[in-house]
Amino acid sequence: MELVKITNFELYDIVLYGDEEEKAAVLESEFNLQGWVRTNRTNGQIGFIEFNDGTYFKNVQLVYSKDNPQYDLLASFRNGCAIEINGKVVLTPENKQPFEINVLEAKLLGDCAEDYPLQKKRHSFEFLREIAHVRPRGNTFQAVFRVRSVLSYAVHQFFQERGFIYVHTPEITTNDGEGAGNVFDVTTHDTKDPFSFYGRKVNLTVTGQLHVEPFALAFRDVYTFGPVFRAEHSNTVRHASEFWMIEPEMAFCDLNDNMQVIEDCIKYCISYVQEACPEEMKFFNTMIDNTLQERLNHVVNSEFKKMTYTEGIEILKEAVRNGVEFENSNIEWGMDLQSEHERYLTEKVVNGPLFLIDYPREIKAFYMKVNPDQKTVAACDLLVPAVGELVGGSQREENYDVLKAKMDEMGITEGLEWYLDTRRYGGCIHSGFGIGFDRLLMYITGMQNIRDVQPYPRTSNSIKY
Amino acid sequence: MELVKITNFELYDIVLYGDEEEKAAVLESEFNLQGWVRTNRTNGQIGFIEFNDGTYFKNVQLVYSKDNPQYDLLASFRNGCAIEINGKVVLTPENKQPFEINVLEAKLLGDCAEDYPLQKKRHSFEFLREIAHVRPRGNTFQAVFRVRSVLSYAVHQFFQERGFIYVHTPEITTNDGEGAGNVFDVTTHDTKDPFSFYGRKVNLTVTGQLHVEPFALAFRDVYTFGPVFRAEHSNTVRHASEFWMIEPEMAFCDLNDNMQVIEDCIKYCISYVQEACPEEMKFFNTMIDNTLQERLNHVVNSEFKKMTYTEGIEILKEAVRNGVEFENSNIEWGMDLQSEHERYLTEKVVNGPLFLIDYPREIKAFYMKVNPDQKTVAACDLLVPAVGELVGGSQREENYDVLKAKMDEMGITEGLEWYLDTRRYGGCIHSGFGIGFDRLLMYITGMQNIRDVQPYPRTSNSIKY
Repeated sequence: MELVKITNFELYDIVLYGDEEEKAAVLESEFNLQGWVRTNRTNGQIGFIEFNDGTYFKNVQLVYSKDNPQYDLLASFRNGCAIEINGKVVLTPENKQPFEINVLEAKLLGDCAEDYPLQKKRHSFEFLREIAHVRPRGNTFQAVFRVRSVLSYAVHQFFQERGFIYVHTPEITTNDGEGAGNVFDVTTHDTKDPFSFYGRKVNLTVTGQLHVEPFALAFRDVYTFGPVFRAEHSNTVRHASEFWMIEPEMAFCDLNDNMQVIEDCIKYCISYVQEACPEEMKFFNTMIDNTLQERLNHVVNSEFKKMTYTEGIEILKEAVRNGVEFENSNIEWGMDLQSEHERYLTEKVVNGPLFLIDYPREIKAFYMKVNPDQKTVAACDLLVPAVGELVGGSQREENYDVLKAKMDEMGITEGLEWYLDTRRYGGCIHSGFGIGFDRLLMYITGMQNIRDVQPYPRTSNSIKY
Repeated sequence: MELVKITNFELYDIVLYGDEEEKAAVLESEFNLQGWVRTNRTNGQIGFIEFNDGTYFKNVQLVYSKDNPQYDLLASFRNGCAIEINGKVVLTPENKQPFEINVLEAKLLGDCAEDYPLQKKRHSFEFLREIAHVRPRGNTFQAVFRVRSVLSYAVHQFFQERGFIYVHTPEITTNDGEGAGNVFDVTTHDTKDPFSFYGRKVNLTVTGQLHVEPFALAFRDVYTFGPVFRAEHSNTVRHASEFWMIEPEMAFCDLNDNMQVIEDCIKYCISYVQEACPEEMKFFNTMIDNTLQERLNHVVNSEFKKMTYTEGIEILKEAVRNGVEFENSNIEWGMDLQSEHERYLTEKVVNGPLFLIDYPREIKAFYMKVNPDQKTVAACDLLVPAVGELVGGSQREENYDVLKAKMDEMGITEGLEWYLDTRRYGGCIHSGFGIGFDRLLMYITGMQNIRDVQPYPRTSNSIKY
């Protein structure tokens, strides 16, 4: 089978986007293809294999006829098996697919057992979660995981093109970030002692921010993008115990500069995926959420609005007075907003992306910059329609005395002296934000469950693989 | 201080690479700069600040004279403090640096305490390791961590441009990869029970390979690039307990195809860094290892050679007979080669990069393809001068019966049934490799200790931060 090899992606690329010369060259030649059978059907005279080699979202249709000396072999190929074929490209402008392949020669590379779980019928996402090692072969998860890869790359491109330095912050650490407490300990095998390996108690990181800040004070603009962990038992569609976070940090950058970077970043990522994955995005819009493309286009074309938390509270109170019903209608300054409140503000009030800023200091992290009013901090949460909070950021407290007093009060100064050092050694105004990568991916694909955007999801009481 | 802001990078970029018009525009204007004082010296009449804002490796020289009404303020700026200045660009073609900035106005943004550990004298790497949060402000670690960022991006570019799908394989897992045993357990806070959260015993991953293989059988070409962990007490300059691995996996790809991708990848990464970080690479060649650039150029311009393990053993035996001395001169077929043996082959025998292939099955991982001789496996280790092994790869055993027999023998089948499934559901010839990212970075920078290429190194009995 010594012909020139070609992938599904290359075929579609030439047929859809090639010039006439390239197309003509493909039509005159025979090629070798290797990939997997999605489905195979025959009417006894002619057979059709939906063939996919993983390089492109759409299948390639292989056609074989009764005249083919290997007809019986071809007709015997089961769903899921790996095959190799030699074939000729035929344009089919009158059909749904723009071309098909006439099979000249075929070979079974790897058969597929009868218990193959991806048969033609539609499967529930719950069922597919149980076969995380097989689900990427179906349409939905081909689309999800290709977009996951492309979105990761978009994140890197956005920051690298702007001169940001990528910092691999550590996964194993001695501090628990925001003092949340829901951390996983790390012990050596069988000793069960979180002190044994390093001589200090260690846990898995919940955020890279504290570790990345000193790099911002050396490189100006930096970001970390890696896995973080929460030992939370929240069994919701938006919580996982392991997920990826994007955490940029910028020196000489105040809250307004910070919001500009967030807005640019979100718009860049959405546009990038829309351009790089048109078939996948069309699929999501058709099969998962038919408001998706409109929603994303709206974000890309909106100027993000700004509103203070205090203004937001007033608007919510007014809404309740006017009869709007929330699950929690007891709106008070100082409360943590729920998703229903955030969505009301972004969907009903501004009808578009909204930065809510200047939150009460008590409900935000210790490192956020205290505003002159002493009651609020220079935080900014980006709220978007259909989801609520998508990004959380803030200007950081650069005043050593203010920061140390807050840390002392919380009892977290010991072990974080190095973090305080950043305020003693040429500290400056700096800001940053965090994006839960998996939630951003859910937002862009319309997928509703975080378990369906992670290759091997890790949630409370659920781990296989 | 309402002037147009400009970074060190932008200044150097225009002065060194801009056209005459751009240069003229810069020379006519006044700018605002924000950054840190590296050093500050004055002779009472005129003062010089080595200024760096983290955006470019080289400092910008700020000049201020006794005439400046803020002379005393300027002269008082300590090493490490954050400042903001307005100034005018002056070309200085007769000096070492191509331009300097005449300070018009200055402001102290953040003072630097007297105990600032980065004073002008040269510091040992050992000392700098103790201040991991400050060392990125010095030349060596500015260079190291910028190259780390650029190299990471080069890795992504290489694979993404070739259509590989980036898979975030999980960090928390139920299997210990290669059965090595040196894994970290993950427990919930205070329970010390590795079963408590997930209902199954879990540990930190040692490799993403097993998890990425099913994705290769869905997407053809995939890679994972993320942190992995080893609870090894090896206290060497090349071992860390947390490090990043690059692990590509390719379906329909045999050992030869695999070696071609490895060769292309290594050459791409080196060339990319050389082009993107010329100042940093010059620094490493001058200050760290003056054979570095020659060595890297040699690799980029070499065709990588191939030799079987069996041939390698014969050559080593012959060398011993001819009087070559190794620490271990007891050369036997079946032994694990030490770095000294690998270096002899790559440095003395072929004088360039060398793939050693077809290793004894007993010394290689269970998933490697058994060769027809039944004694060796289709493995390939890339050996390079000055280091030894840089990359390890193999064709994978796609035969279900052979693989299962090996796994049964090792007692690791239970819990890995899903991995075996990949050989039952349309399995095919596939291959992959692993590159220790931190070691690749050491190789490209000439840095000799893995603790000096990681932002916050994690090694046995050593963790701070």
